[in-house]
Amino acid sequence: MVKFKVRVEVWLKDELVDAEGKTVEEALKDLGYDVSGVRVGKVYIFNVESESSSDVERVVVDICERLLANPVKDKYFVSVLGHEV
Amino acid sequence: MVKFKVRVEVWLKDELVDAEGKTVEEALKDLGYDVSGVRVGKVYIFNVESESSSDVERVVVDICERLLANPVKDKYFVSVLGHEV
Repeated sequence: MVKFKVRVEVWLKDELVDAEGKTVEEALKDLGYDVSGVRVGKVYIFNVESESSSDVERVVVDICERLLANPVKDKYFVSVLGHEV
Repeated sequence: MVKFKVRVEVWLKDELVDAEGKTVEEALKDLGYDVSGVRVGKVYIFNVESESSSDVERVVVDICERLLANPVKDKYFVSVLGHEV
């Protein structure tokens, strides 16, 4: 098994209203900043053991679908940052 | 004024225990994944009006210090992704 460092970004799908983003946007406007289109996402960095670099992306997509993202309302991006040698 | 698209990432400082990351890590282990070192951050993308590209980073750092990040416990990264022409 090889230890891979991976990164996942999870965002609400573009067509959905981002309530948290709207709240941040209103707060920034109240502070006097001229901002628009605020979207808020989550980002995860972690290590995962996997058999090979061809297998790790499948494992991370599985992790996203089961825990980190809600496929109904979220989009997500997976990056393999590197592996232990 | 020019409209800039910017991106901010906010993470707990490395020396602080990331309780949310630990929770995610335990949940993933319970699901059978061999993961470690889970850290969770927030990512913001938004448009901001600013006078110049030299000014926009100062504005975004200001936004981070006042609202998006807590300088006592967070570290943050600012990227200017582009501007409207």
